Amino acid sequence: MTEWMSKIDWADIWTTIVTAALQLILILIVYVVVRAIGKRLITKSFERMTKQKNMSAGRAKTLEKLALNIFYYVLIFIVATFVIGIFGLNVTALIASAGIAGLAVGFGAQGLVSDVVTGFFLLLEKQMEVDEYVTISGIDGIVEEVGLRTTKLRGFDGTVHFIPNREIGSLSNHSRSTMRALVDISISYDENIDETIAVLQKVCDRFAAEDEAIKEGPNVLGVQSLGDSDIVIRIIAKTENMEQWAVERRLKKALKEALDDNNIEIPFPHQVYIQKSDQGKKNA
Amino acid sequence: MTEWMSKIDWADIWTTIVTAALQLILILIVYVVVRAIGKRLITKSFERMTKQKNMSAGRAKTLEKLALNIFYYVLIFIVATFVIGIFGLNVTALIASAGIAGLAVGFGAQGLVSDVVTGFFLLLEKQMEVDEYVTISGIDGIVEEVGLRTTKLRGFDGTVHFIPNREIGSLSNHSRSTMRALVDISISYDENIDETIAVLQKVCDRFAAEDEAIKEGPNVLGVQSLGDSDIVIRIIAKTENMEQWAVERRLKKALKEALDDNNIEIPFPHQVYIQKSDQGKKNA
Amino acid sequence: MTEWMSKIDWADIWTTIVTAALQLILILIVYVVVRAIGKRLITKSFERMTKQKNMSAGRAKTLEKLALNIFYYVLIFIVATFVIGIFGLNVTALIASAGIAGLAVGFGAQGLVSDVVTGFFLLLEKQMEVDEYVTISGIDGIVEEVGLRTTKLRGFDGTVHFIPNREIGSLSNHSRSTMRALVDISISYDENIDETIAVLQKVCDRFAAEDEAIKEGPNVLGVQSLGDSDIVIRIIAKTENMEQWAVERRLKKALKEALDDNNIEIPFPHQVYIQKSDQGKKNA
Amino acid sequence: MTEWMSKIDWADIWTTIVTAALQLILILIVYVVVRAIGKRLITKSFERMTKQKNMSAGRAKTLEKLALNIFYYVLIFIVATFVIGIFGLNVTALIASAGIAGLAVGFGAQGLVSDVVTGFFLLLEKQMEVDEYVTISGIDGIVEEVGLRTTKLRGFDGTVHFIPNREIGSLSNHSRSTMRALVDISISYDENIDETIAVLQKVCDRFAAEDEAIKEGPNVLGVQSLGDSDIVIRIIAKTENMEQWAVERRLKKALKEALDDNNIEIPFPHQVYIQKSDQGKKNA
Amino acid sequence: MTEWMSKIDWADIWTTIVTAALQLILILIVYVVVRAIGKRLITKSFERMTKQKNMSAGRAKTLEKLALNIFYYVLIFIVATFVIGIFGLNVTALIASAGIAGLAVGFGAQGLVSDVVTGFFLLLEKQMEVDEYVTISGIDGIVEEVGLRTTKLRGFDGTVHFIPNREIGSLSNHSRSTMRALVDISISYDENIDETIAVLQKVCDRFAAEDEAIKEGPNVLGVQSLGDSDIVIRIIAKTENMEQWAVERRLKKALKEALDDNNIEIPFPHQVYIQKSDQGKKNA
Amino acid sequence: MTEWMSKIDWADIWTTIVTAALQLILILIVYVVVRAIGKRLITKSFERMTKQKNMSAGRAKTLEKLALNIFYYVLIFIVATFVIGIFGLNVTALIASAGIAGLAVGFGAQGLVSDVVTGFFLLLEKQMEVDEYVTISGIDGIVEEVGLRTTKLRGFDGTVHFIPNREIGSLSNHSRSTMRALVDISISYDENIDETIAVLQKVCDRFAAEDEAIKEGPNVLGVQSLGDSDIVIRIIAKTENMEQWAVERRLKKALKEALDDNNIEIPFPHQVYIQKSDQGKKNA
Amino acid sequence: MTEWMSKIDWADIWTTIVTAALQLILILIVYVVVRAIGKRLITKSFERMTKQKNMSAGRAKTLEKLALNIFYYVLIFIVATFVIGIFGLNVTALIASAGIAGLAVGFGAQGLVSDVVTGFFLLLEKQMEVDEYVTISGIDGIVEEVGLRTTKLRGFDGTVHFIPNREIGSLSNHSRSTMRALVDISISYDENIDETIAVLQKVCDRFAAEDEAIKEGPNVLGVQSLGDSDIVIRIIAKTENMEQWAVERRLKKALKEALDDNNIEIPFPHQVYIQKSDQGKKNA
Repeated sequence: MTEWMSKIDWADIWTTIVTAALQLILILIVYVVVRAIGKRLITKSFERMTKQKNMSAGRAKTLEKLALNIFYYVLIFIVATFVIGIFGLNVTALIASAGIAGLAVGFGAQGLVSDVVTGFFLLLEKQMEVDEYVTISGIDGIVEEVGLRTTKLRGFDGTVHFIPNREIGSLSNHSRSTMRALVDISISYDENIDETIAVLQKVCDRFAAEDEAIKEGPNVLGVQSLGDSDIVIRIIAKTENMEQWAVERRLKKALKEALDDNNIEIPFPHQVYIQKSDQGKKNA
Repeated sequence: MTEWMSKIDWADIWTTIVTAALQLILILIVYVVVRAIGKRLITKSFERMTKQKNMSAGRAKTLEKLALNIFYYVLIFIVATFVIGIFGLNVTALIASAGIAGLAVGFGAQGLVSDVVTGFFLLLEKQMEVDEYVTISGIDGIVEEVGLRTTKLRGFDGTVHFIPNREIGSLSNHSRSTMRALVDISISYDENIDETIAVLQKVCDRFAAEDEAIKEGPNVLGVQSLGDSDIVIRIIAKTENMEQWAVERRLKKALKEALDDNNIEIPFPHQVYIQKSDQGKKNA
Repeated sequence: MTEWMSKIDWADIWTTIVTAALQLILILIVYVVVRAIGKRLITKSFERMTKQKNMSAGRAKTLEKLALNIFYYVLIFIVATFVIGIFGLNVTALIASAGIAGLAVGFGAQGLVSDVVTGFFLLLEKQMEVDEYVTISGIDGIVEEVGLRTTKLRGFDGTVHFIPNREIGSLSNHSRSTMRALVDISISYDENIDETIAVLQKVCDRFAAEDEAIKEGPNVLGVQSLGDSDIVIRIIAKTENMEQWAVERRLKKALKEALDDNNIEIPFPHQVYIQKSDQGKKNA
Repeated sequence: MTEWMSKIDWADIWTTIVTAALQLILILIVYVVVRAIGKRLITKSFERMTKQKNMSAGRAKTLEKLALNIFYYVLIFIVATFVIGIFGLNVTALIASAGIAGLAVGFGAQGLVSDVVTGFFLLLEKQMEVDEYVTISGIDGIVEEVGLRTTKLRGFDGTVHFIPNREIGSLSNHSRSTMRALVDISISYDENIDETIAVLQKVCDRFAAEDEAIKEGPNVLGVQSLGDSDIVIRIIAKTENMEQWAVERRLKKALKEALDDNNIEIPFPHQVYIQKSDQGKKNA
Repeated sequence: MTEWMSKIDWADIWTTIVTAALQLILILIVYVVVRAIGKRLITKSFERMTKQKNMSAGRAKTLEKLALNIFYYVLIFIVATFVIGIFGLNVTALIASAGIAGLAVGFGAQGLVSDVVTGFFLLLEKQMEVDEYVTISGIDGIVEEVGLRTTKLRGFDGTVHFIPNREIGSLSNHSRSTMRALVDISISYDENIDETIAVLQKVCDRFAAEDEAIKEGPNVLGVQSLGDSDIVIRIIAKTENMEQWAVERRLKKALKEALDDNNIEIPFPHQVYIQKSDQGKKNA
Repeated sequence: MTEWMSKIDWADIWTTIVTAALQLILILIVYVVVRAIGKRLITKSFERMTKQKNMSAGRAKTLEKLALNIFYYVLIFIVATFVIGIFGLNVTALIASAGIAGLAVGFGAQGLVSDVVTGFFLLLEKQMEVDEYVTISGIDGIVEEVGLRTTKLRGFDGTVHFIPNREIGSLSNHSRSTMRALVDISISYDENIDETIAVLQKVCDRFAAEDEAIKEGPNVLGVQSLGDSDIVIRIIAKTENMEQWAVERRLKKALKEALDDNNIEIPFPHQVYIQKSDQGKKNA
Repeated sequence: MTEWMSKIDWADIWTTIVTAALQLILILIVYVVVRAIGKRLITKSFERMTKQKNMSAGRAKTLEKLALNIFYYVLIFIVATFVIGIFGLNVTALIASAGIAGLAVGFGAQGLVSDVVTGFFLLLEKQMEVDEYVTISGIDGIVEEVGLRTTKLRGFDGTVHFIPNREIGSLSNHSRSTMRALVDISISYDENIDETIAVLQKVCDRFAAEDEAIKEGPNVLGVQSLGDSDIVIRIIAKTENMEQWAVERRLKKALKEALDDNNIEIPFPHQVYIQKSDQGKKNA
């Protein structure tokens, strides 16, 4: 056996070991450097982002932590691959296994990844804040929580809606500016349009002076449509946020009473009847 | 043959065997370590989660078991790959087979994986509990069971709905807070709005005092709309959960009777008729 | 040529043969063991499942056979790959071919795999049994057969519906509990609501006593809505399964007759007419 | 050059040739065996299927031929791959090319594969036969042909509909049993319900005796609904297949005439008119 | 340098060259054989198809040319791969490049491939011919051209519709047989049904005798429905293709005039009015 | 060290260099040849296409340039791969990188590729030209520009619609032939149909003679439908493109006036009223 | 050990090192060259684009920066791959890891990539500018911001809509030209059409002279439709952008008043009543 051993190519083994050791050291150095640089880059860019976007500290922390975690996991996976490769094990196995798992994730949990990516940007771009009133895919409500996976809205009737972030396409935020109050008033075809508009505008002017929720207007726009039985006059105003419904209700009451006082008719549906004295047969 | 045998490169074989043995031992050690660490990590993180999210012990157990099972299966698959690779068998075969199976799963059973992933988060995030009243993709019902694959609702009419978790997008939970009762009352254009509101508010105040299911209100909001034949007055209240319908029914009865007592008209649909004595021809 | 032959590295060939033989034996042993273990595992888990889920023997057999078949096919495919790999043939060829076939299956026959997976869980979770009345993707019917690929329903009008299992999303099973019978009765705005409810409740009480199909109620809930021409009173009851329609029919008849007897008006649609003696012109 | 030639490692070449020849023979043997076994298996399983499913000989032939063709093509492709691999050509090339073609098929012609797979099962499961009356994805018609790619229906108005099999989801077959005829009859609120039902049932009994297309009933079920102006009575019967419409027409005529004879009113739509002598103004 | 040259393993180079040459020749032979066989097979199968399916020569030529082109391109691509592989260039590069291009096609131009595949089968299965009247995905029109990528229809109003073949799912061809003309006639509830049917059938019989466009019928089917104000009688006939609308128009005119002559009433919508002398209040 | 150098296998290095040089030259020659042939082929086929399809020179240039660019980029990518492969660098790296980028394109920018492919065929098949009036996915408008990525329509109200080419499925071009004008005229059930048709046809004949926009007709088709209160007579004509609306407007005016002159009634909606003197109760 | 060391093939190691160094230098040179060329190309093409498309400097900068960033990242990734490959580490590991990450991106963050690609072209093609009025997937609003990921619109009622760019299919820009104002006026069947048109045209002519927002017209087109109770006359005009609604309102008022002044009737809905003195029974 010693004969055999002497025949073993020790030099080759030696080279292999030296190479492996050198590679290991190289990998470790690269790992430490990349990790440090990566961490610094992420932290820095979040600092900058926080300032620019004027984000709350808590929210910035959440996003930074998420980004760092993903970075670390990916880095360690890559390093592990190299190390195993050095020890002569079939590294393809690891990768392939990971690849299959990746596919499984890709197909099955696709929605989950999609939730998190969308959630990340919802937080980053501040499309909605807690306590704002928004509409998401047909559901109205006050935002209760914006999470990485799910957004929670509380509907007007008290229902709590859980909406996976991936289902958030267009998002309509109703709490970002003054809102418009819009009232359509029907008057009879017999009324004088100019007079009516004058009466309505007078009410509007009083409102503009008295109602604190109103920011602009209300103004009478004019004849919106010539309907079957009525002429529709449109009035619009700008109000404080979330006050638009109350303003509309107050305006409707005031305008209706003004028309009553000025004896301007609000018409019921009309129909012209023509009596025919046939025997009620289509085909006489 | 002995000559041939002497020519066999025993050293090479020896090296191979030693390498294999060393690799096997390395793999086993790594396996034991990784398994222990993985188990500990999973158990710990579930413990923490259970406390934070205030989950029931049973539910936490279910999720922990699922996570551990997935972890063990993946680990054993990876180890098997390495071991087979060491014995010189074509490890690619195993992986490729697994890859094909993976694809089959990916495409065909995609829905199943998606069910389980969504089910996991439904349990974790506690979007609904058994006996809560929820709406899922257009189906109302009391939750009977939240499983990893299917959620069971019992509809109002007694029907049992089986909903695959993947079909659960937005989930509306109606059992998480006080609910709003909403009643719209029509009055005639001839009535005095202020008086009517006073009458209605009086009923509301009595209700607020007497009805225990009511948490807030009821309040008369004002003129909701100026309809074709009626002015619509809106009343809203906050009630105990699941009591909103009963409250609405009681409110409707009381408000109707109050209007009767105060001789305030609830109008039928109105129409103005104009008689024309032409011969009933469009084109005379 | 003998010279050449002597130059042939017989030792190498020998090593190859020995290695191959050893590998073959190893593979066979592993195969036998894995097959036995796998079979045992599958059989055992089905036994346990059958007991837990309280499945019929026939159904359990079907599922067990399916699981064993899939297991055997996959195992033999893997073994074949290894064996071919040992004989030095390009095993990648086999795998790649299988991979392409796999893709073809994945894309083209995706629906088929999806059918079987869903079918498997329909059988396992017992979402429906033969002779139950269910609603699947908008189709009502009595279940005639639940197969691995297709479910057969017989509709009310005698039509036989074949539904591929993959199209079964939410499934509504109407045969799992007592059902609710619901009757809405319209009364005139002139009637006294309390009196009417008393009359209706009396009928309900008689029904509760006499009708054997009724399990709970019927009870008068109260004023469901204030309609254009009528006040709607809602009555609900719980009945034996599949008896809800007959009960509703009997209830409707009895309630209508009770209202007649007590002279309580069921109103036709009402309309208020206002005659206008203008010349029938909109714009006079 | 002879010197060079002598340096050529003839032994190596020799080994290569011998190995190749042995591999070729091995492949051929395996090919013949697998082909024979495969053919036998397919033929046998189709024989069994034909008996079990009670299929027509022609249909069974079609399916068997399809299955054998697919089996042969796949087998030859695999063998070709091995043979080319033996001759030292880069077999990956062939496979990769095939893979690309496979992808092209997978994506572009996905629908075609899907058509054939669905067509195969339509034929196998006998969901419809030529001359049956079916509904497929909203199209009614008599089946003219069930092909592997397309199904041909002839609509009631004579149109020929070509439906790709992949578009066949739920299939409703109206020719598999007795069908239900359903007639709803409106009577006035003034009529006595019991009397009316007696009159209608008498007509039904006469029909049951005289009409040969009727298999069961017709029976008066009772009060189906309390409408705006009428009480709806429902009558159902079971008829021979495809006779349901004729029976419904005959029933409608007979029931209408019976009501006439017994002076039971079938009501027109009713409306209550209330005249108001205001000046026709909404707001007086 | 000569020393170095002498050290070069010329034998190895020689073997390489010989092997390459042999491989090249082998490839060429295989190429010629496969090409000839492939061409023959395609031509033959198209000949057979042309006879069986009774296709026009022009159409068969188009399809054959398409099939041959695809076959040649694929063959040349495979041969090129082998040849390049022999010259020791990295053949994987070519394949990978092609693979990427293939993916680009697969994803981006997916629709194009799908168009051609569907177009191929539209031509082969003769689902429509130029000048036939068809309905494709909701668009009616006369076929102007069936191409490999696009189908051109001319709508009734003169619009030219370009429909990508991939959008052709179910195709309804209205030009493949006699068509059905269908007329529904309303009569009053006061009329005698038997008499009316006799009158209508007399008109139908006259039509059957006189109108050449009619192939079968027209026949009075009976009472189709008991409407709100009318009894609907249905008449159907079979007419020459594309004549159904003209026949329906003629039938409608004749039937209306026959009812006039026989004094059978075609009713206008009816309504029963009940006058109520209340003060027009809902709640008195 | 000289000892070591003498041990270096210079012959091997030499062979490598020679081989590389030869390969490089081979690649360059192939590149030049393929590029020339490819360019020629593309130019030629565009020349032929331009003639056959009768395309404008500008449009042909655009398409040719696009095709050449794509060809050059693909060619250079392949050549680069080979060259890098020769210099012993890991060519897989390049390909894999490209593959990943390809995937990114495939998934993310899928729409873009799809836009260009569709745009290419829109230009090639001349489905629409600038200034034609078309309907694309529900949007009507005059074509302003057909680009490779986007098509620009100007709507009737002045809106500019940007439509990504991928969203262009069925395209309806209203500017390719004479268009049909269609007018439906209602007459009373009391009128004589034959007389009416004669009157209407006289107007049509006058129109045919006088109106230059009319290419064929107008003709009275006959009784289109027997409505609730009217008999509908249909008139159709063929007009110059884009003149159909003006012709319809002129026809409507003329036909209405002709009916007036001939005292033929155009009926208002009719209803038969039956007074009932009950006390206005449904259930007396 | 010295013995062993002497056996080490130093020449081989030396060759390896030299080769690696040469490769490194080659890569660096190629990197510098490619980077310079790429940067130049991108900068140049953006310069040209900016001029051609007449883009604002800010917008061009944004796009150029984005393009350069992507180019640099891809380049560095490729270089890193080569360098690692040279140091003998398993470069496949890196690529595979990246590939898996790529897949994750491809599937999960697909939407994000799609957003950016669409955003890039929205900016490049200038489909909308800030402050323009557009319609995107059913949402109207003034553009507030066009970003790479999201577009922000402010709706008419003050709501801020966040629309992910990928959801922008067809985009309708209402701010790119004069807009059309359209008014439909109903007149009675008794009126003379020619006279009415003259009256309406006179108002239009006055408007054309006086109203500065009007660019063309208004013109009376003629009889748009013959309705149930009215003849509809259509008037259209071209107005300054965003002034169309105000012009329509002013036109409606003026036209209505002109008809009043000329005593031309605007009709209410008409109906012919036929009294029937039957006993109110359908079936007498």
